[in-house]
Amino acid sequence: MSVKFAVLGAGRIGQVHASTIAAVPGAELVAVADAMPAAAAAVAAAHGCDVKTIDDIAADAGVDAVIIGTPTDTHADLIEQFVRAGKAVFCEKPVDLSLERVKSCLEVVQAEGGKLMVGFNRRFDPDFRAAHAAIQQGRIGKVEMVTITSRDPGAPPPEYITRSGGIFRDMTIHDFDMARWLLGEEVTTVQAAASVLVDPEIGKLGDYDSANVILTTASGQQCVITNSRRATYGYDQRIEVHGSEGSVTAENQREARIEIADEKGAHRPPLLNFFMTRYTAAYANEIAEFVDALNTGGAMPTTGHDGLMALALADAALLSVAEGRVVQVLEVLGDG
Amino acid sequence: MSVKFAVLGAGRIGQVHASTIAAVPGAELVAVADAMPAAAAAVAAAHGCDVKTIDDIAADAGVDAVIIGTPTDTHADLIEQFVRAGKAVFCEKPVDLSLERVKSCLEVVQAEGGKLMVGFNRRFDPDFRAAHAAIQQGRIGKVEMVTITSRDPGAPPPEYITRSGGIFRDMTIHDFDMARWLLGEEVTTVQAAASVLVDPEIGKLGDYDSANVILTTASGQQCVITNSRRATYGYDQRIEVHGSEGSVTAENQREARIEIADEKGAHRPPLLNFFMTRYTAAYANEIAEFVDALNTGGAMPTTGHDGLMALALADAALLSVAEGRVVQVLEVLGDG
Amino acid sequence: MSVKFAVLGAGRIGQVHASTIAAVPGAELVAVADAMPAAAAAVAAAHGCDVKTIDDIAADAGVDAVIIGTPTDTHADLIEQFVRAGKAVFCEKPVDLSLERVKSCLEVVQAEGGKLMVGFNRRFDPDFRAAHAAIQQGRIGKVEMVTITSRDPGAPPPEYITRSGGIFRDMTIHDFDMARWLLGEEVTTVQAAASVLVDPEIGKLGDYDSANVILTTASGQQCVITNSRRATYGYDQRIEVHGSEGSVTAENQREARIEIADEKGAHRPPLLNFFMTRYTAAYANEIAEFVDALNTGGAMPTTGHDGLMALALADAALLSVAEGRVVQVLEVLGDG
Amino acid sequence: MSVKFAVLGAGRIGQVHASTIAAVPGAELVAVADAMPAAAAAVAAAHGCDVKTIDDIAADAGVDAVIIGTPTDTHADLIEQFVRAGKAVFCEKPVDLSLERVKSCLEVVQAEGGKLMVGFNRRFDPDFRAAHAAIQQGRIGKVEMVTITSRDPGAPPPEYITRSGGIFRDMTIHDFDMARWLLGEEVTTVQAAASVLVDPEIGKLGDYDSANVILTTASGQQCVITNSRRATYGYDQRIEVHGSEGSVTAENQREARIEIADEKGAHRPPLLNFFMTRYTAAYANEIAEFVDALNTGGAMPTTGHDGLMALALADAALLSVAEGRVVQVLEVLGDG
Repeated sequence: MSVKFAVLGAGRIGQVHASTIAAVPGAELVAVADAMPAAAAAVAAAHGCDVKTIDDIAADAGVDAVIIGTPTDTHADLIEQFVRAGKAVFCEKPVDLSLERVKSCLEVVQAEGGKLMVGFNRRFDPDFRAAHAAIQQGRIGKVEMVTITSRDPGAPPPEYITRSGGIFRDMTIHDFDMARWLLGEEVTTVQAAASVLVDPEIGKLGDYDSANVILTTASGQQCVITNSRRATYGYDQRIEVHGSEGSVTAENQREARIEIADEKGAHRPPLLNFFMTRYTAAYANEIAEFVDALNTGGAMPTTGHDGLMALALADAALLSVAEGRVVQVLEVLGDG
Repeated sequence: MSVKFAVLGAGRIGQVHASTIAAVPGAELVAVADAMPAAAAAVAAAHGCDVKTIDDIAADAGVDAVIIGTPTDTHADLIEQFVRAGKAVFCEKPVDLSLERVKSCLEVVQAEGGKLMVGFNRRFDPDFRAAHAAIQQGRIGKVEMVTITSRDPGAPPPEYITRSGGIFRDMTIHDFDMARWLLGEEVTTVQAAASVLVDPEIGKLGDYDSANVILTTASGQQCVITNSRRATYGYDQRIEVHGSEGSVTAENQREARIEIADEKGAHRPPLLNFFMTRYTAAYANEIAEFVDALNTGGAMPTTGHDGLMALALADAALLSVAEGRVVQVLEVLGDG
Repeated sequence: MSVKFAVLGAGRIGQVHASTIAAVPGAELVAVADAMPAAAAAVAAAHGCDVKTIDDIAADAGVDAVIIGTPTDTHADLIEQFVRAGKAVFCEKPVDLSLERVKSCLEVVQAEGGKLMVGFNRRFDPDFRAAHAAIQQGRIGKVEMVTITSRDPGAPPPEYITRSGGIFRDMTIHDFDMARWLLGEEVTTVQAAASVLVDPEIGKLGDYDSANVILTTASGQQCVITNSRRATYGYDQRIEVHGSEGSVTAENQREARIEIADEKGAHRPPLLNFFMTRYTAAYANEIAEFVDALNTGGAMPTTGHDGLMALALADAALLSVAEGRVVQVLEVLGDG
Repeated sequence: MSVKFAVLGAGRIGQVHASTIAAVPGAELVAVADAMPAAAAAVAAAHGCDVKTIDDIAADAGVDAVIIGTPTDTHADLIEQFVRAGKAVFCEKPVDLSLERVKSCLEVVQAEGGKLMVGFNRRFDPDFRAAHAAIQQGRIGKVEMVTITSRDPGAPPPEYITRSGGIFRDMTIHDFDMARWLLGEEVTTVQAAASVLVDPEIGKLGDYDSANVILTTASGQQCVITNSRRATYGYDQRIEVHGSEGSVTAENQREARIEIADEKGAHRPPLLNFFMTRYTAAYANEIAEFVDALNTGGAMPTTGHDGLMALALADAALLSVAEGRVVQVLEVLGDG
């Protein structure tokens, strides 16, 4: 009794998910859809599934669940369509770049009693999970301070920037989700600084490439997020959690675990510098847990609410930069 | 035009190889054989291949290559049978515990013009490969000294010891192969010390559980191998190569890349402590390279000769311990 | 022609400086003063110098320079007294807890053409200096982001808190100075979060024990400072500077460079957990450089202006917390 | 009541010891002797002591103890002279390059009831001590295997080689002493390999520049020592002790605790590459402990017997290389 999947969007991330489904016990890939027939055909050929249209998939009683890996501006509509069609939905973050649209989408999900998982892959990284588990086990006492460092290897092209929603909604959103997960308590205030240091083109588009954010919770916990769109040394992804009894850190991953020593010193290889390589295990784990939740009737590992909250923190950060002040999350979230 | 494989032996390692073949492009698993019908059936079910007898596989024109993962004392006979049947053969180390039997087997392989790869998995570990590549690229100059540390998490049970051929032929044999690979020159002398420190039962069986070996080459290069059958902290697998211009080391792998700090200090998780977990990538890579060599007509990545030489070094080490002297490899290898 | 020194204040830090002077070539300890005769006598006995009153030292033509290690509220007066007396002055940070008092004191120093070094010891730590040197050598390109982590091993007693000026003026002040030094550009805005997580008594005194601060410069550089009054794992003192071409980090110091591995993992000793042990070399270096500057007529390595600016950042941080907004440094600094 | 010291030999190491004595409580430097008047005068000027001849020092009732830092071939004679004169003696290793001469010298020491400490500085290194203390505290269970890596930054000049006694007596001797200290049990067998890989001139002088040694004890413990006269990456000084319950390692020291990351990877500075810099603390500690032993009447921290045994292991290693066999230590030590 395996879960029958369709993958919507046969791009880079869709291919990754398709391969995971093919390898995960309890899941079966039955269909793929993509606006580009060649892309869909390639996935179908690699995994022996059918190419179908999105509407056919929605109507197909043989499909239990879909993975949405299409462009961001289609996410909310597709979530609604497939939840209404009675399919379980795994959607890549974000649900939408508009907080209002996310809210209305989640209302549909709730009204339909739908199952929706939002793909915050980092929570499923084995090292971050080990750090989180250590916290849950009480190894560091009460969580007081979280430090998240997240730097991309290089800035994306201008055309990506224009559709991205800006650094906070596109990049920091992952860190906002990590912050909530690691703090274990809802964030109440946001303050941020942002500047353009990497690429002036990004500034011309009204976005930033370098940012620091401070979050606080009602109990006084604090979290700092440090972002840059460029790190020559690779994809810099670290977390550090300081508690009343100790701290836990998760370190970066390198191309190889070797060290070369010579007269200039000791040298280790650069960090993995592509998010798909860095988070290979995380991508596999998130789908495996989605499948497991569907098979066991368990709760979604990450929810639409998680998607909503991370976006709210992004909007609050943007407002903080604009107005030079601490922003209450409730200001952007409203009373919804 | 993929290579059609049969797996002989559906035990732990056979299952690993079967999964790899299922995942590697250019390879296809068509049959499995095992003395235990249930074991063979499980592999067949998992990967959708047939259960057959060894003789049927040898006679099957639809099989291009076999992977031998049966007990050691069957290896040489199976290699001969399948080489004579015109199949390419991947055989787990060792070819045999007797140097004479290995030689006669390799003569058959040569006479038949057969293709034989011996499974020295460590050469295919990504970190060791990165270290080897650095050497090949001249990053450390001329190789002068190699240090190999290899410690098992725990001693095997007595029944394993009795069939193992002893620590040098069973455990150090991997390190002998690594030494030859890293030195880049044939070993000419062997001296060794061995003792029983871990488990007196091992001593009663005439074997050792702790050993150090020094190897030298004609040009004066040296290699030290350190072995123990027990390491409470996990599967300790390190190499260090010192050259005229620098050194390169490959480090251990841990359960997670986290560090917990508390009032007692900074703590990282133990090493991976199971060889199949530690060498997951190596097992996959060795089969992928075997497939690639078959598809391209390239040379076998590791050969029967490699198997012969590693066993010769093991025999030399044993003789060195017995006689308390430096042993010339030619003494044990003979003029063959 | 060595510089003749008097040490004012024979407490913990005065003793350290006295020992340094005794060991540094080109310097000579000739007198010590302390309100507690026994304390002064101990230093005099250890180093063979005279015990004198502060006024006698000021009047003593045989004294070239003084080191002020007395309580904070005496610093500004003593600086003025000794600058007027024509002595070079090394004063422990801070000059004063009041920005206005610091300004008036520095006006006296300037009017007198006096020499004043303020003891920001961290700039003289060998590891931080190596990091700074790497930046100066262009190893990381243009500095974009600075991250400073500074956590005390444990919170000070309430009586210390009441006299300290609060966490920003007492603890973060060191980090503010490091930030200015590492950014290489003046800070223009400050925003901060602060809370009480370690000890409620600190909160009752109107102070905080946990804080994060974001600084920015006119060119858009950013710096994050993370502080806590407690770290079970020792005195946590790290810097990380991210630039356009790379990054440089300086790591903590541990009690010993050993690692113990056992079935629970790999363990290193805690961090050094006392500031005098952690910064032993820094304390010696700052005095040696002061002596060197006096002997060569060079510029003071750290100045009264540095003391003023660090305090201004502290005041700005406090204001930011109070008003929940970004504070311009000029707001607190005025037009002076 | 401080111990009054004279330093014999005002060279590099004599100057280090003179400075230590000047700084250690309970010790006083009263005289220095050297064949080169200028060298002695420099030490006398730096520390305010007298220049005297060796014989005058021996006859001086105001001298309690001497530090012998003269050329090796004078050590044994000076030890005898000063022990007979009733002085406590600290002598740099080795006592002599001839095992017979060492024995006869130690007989004189014993007959006179003299106090003799031999300067095996490494036992006093803080990191090695921390490792040793961990062993003593039972942190790794029973010691089974010791691995000592010791590589010089560069080969000494030919004129040093000719007087050195060869690599085993000059360089490995430190490691032999460390092995005895860490094993906690006397070594019974020695086997070694040695070659010339660094500098052919060393070979022409009948010496080696690269060596590996295996030591065993009666209980079956093993130790491996790896030596090279060249390491481009600095002075490589590591120990690793594997026990029944775990392991402990002591790591190298670098020029600074920084790491630079760039597109080529992560880079740390080279190792400290001068023995006096690397072992600064060890040199100070060994003299402080000698002083303490004299002041308290305690046992010598390292003894003439330690010097004898380390030399015996060196002679055994040389014999092993010459004869290609395991050598019993008793063969070279005789029944004395």
